[in-house]
Amino acid sequence: MRFCNQCGADLRYSIPDGDDRKRYICDACGVIHYQNPKIVAGTIPVWKERILLCRRAIEPRKGFWTLPAGFMELGETTEEAAIRETAEEANAVVNIKGLYTMYSLPYISQVHLFFRAELQDGRYSPGSESLETRLFNESDIPWEEISFETVSQTLRCYFEDRRKGLFGLRVGKVEGEFKPHWQKG
Amino acid sequence: MRFCNQCGADLRYSIPDGDDRKRYICDACGVIHYQNPKIVAGTIPVWKERILLCRRAIEPRKGFWTLPAGFMELGETTEEAAIRETAEEANAVVNIKGLYTMYSLPYISQVHLFFRAELQDGRYSPGSESLETRLFNESDIPWEEISFETVSQTLRCYFEDRRKGLFGLRVGKVEGEFKPHWQKG
Repeated sequence: MRFCNQCGADLRYSIPDGDDRKRYICDACGVIHYQNPKIVAGTIPVWKERILLCRRAIEPRKGFWTLPAGFMELGETTEEAAIRETAEEANAVVNIKGLYTMYSLPYISQVHLFFRAELQDGRYSPGSESLETRLFNESDIPWEEISFETVSQTLRCYFEDRRKGLFGLRVGKVEGEFKPHWQKG
Repeated sequence: MRFCNQCGADLRYSIPDGDDRKRYICDACGVIHYQNPKIVAGTIPVWKERILLCRRAIEPRKGFWTLPAGFMELGETTEEAAIRETAEEANAVVNIKGLYTMYSLPYISQVHLFFRAELQDGRYSPGSESLETRLFNESDIPWEEISFETVSQTLRCYFEDRRKGLFGLRVGKVEGEFKPHWQKG
């Protein structure tokens, strides 16, 4: 970030008065450009005990399998974001059952939310960001080809809780050094 | 948003190829400036059955009572954000007990998270953003002077669940027309 997006002037990166951390400040128009973590919302879409996964057609992790999920947009709720992403990536309509996992990823300033969900009619097909969509039994999950750590952990918890017959909210943290190329300061 | 914060060129507001909603696009350097909802994280700090509230020293809702909460920063977890805000606004050290409420506020593109928490040592005092901090019994909560709807709802749920002896996660949505002056497109 080098220029003020309001007035075009050069930005200064320093601690504003009364604050305790560096921000991008515009001395010309006075705006402070705060930066904050982003939310990724998705679902665990279930149909007759099987889980719907999508094989990614785009980077990062192209070719790997994921739960449908993506960045929450302005003006929507977390559930709406999760439902929309499921529709976009898997052409599937889901009913939300409840929030299931929330992971903080401080190394890339993201929070990932996964909701348990049921397919409404069992129909699905690859959206434009997916190469393939498929329902998996637990024994068939391609664990070595899962795209993201939060997806693996969500799936492992899901099967564990399903055996116990009780789904409890999981709140966690995923550490990592990996900084995806699409995540620029 | 008028200028590219990377190169300073004028931005165009239109739908990028392969997308379905308008974004701020820089034709000069190719960057698309995505905008996403922000997370507000806070705690319900409890000490011997009483709840710690802070009277706001800053706008919006200056003079009204709130649970300690604020915008999550880059590089932290949701719990770290909630703990930090409690320290900043009430000089109180808390242990997190669990996520309790998550509200989407699509009209201002925010998600509010409140964690149940316990004061470590019963000590608290107003931070720079608070006029006053005080422990309240349920019967003394100043309901008419609570700063935000998500705080009121979180407190009402908390007392209701405490009577039942069971705290269950609440996920909801708060509607509103109110667009605070500090929330600019």
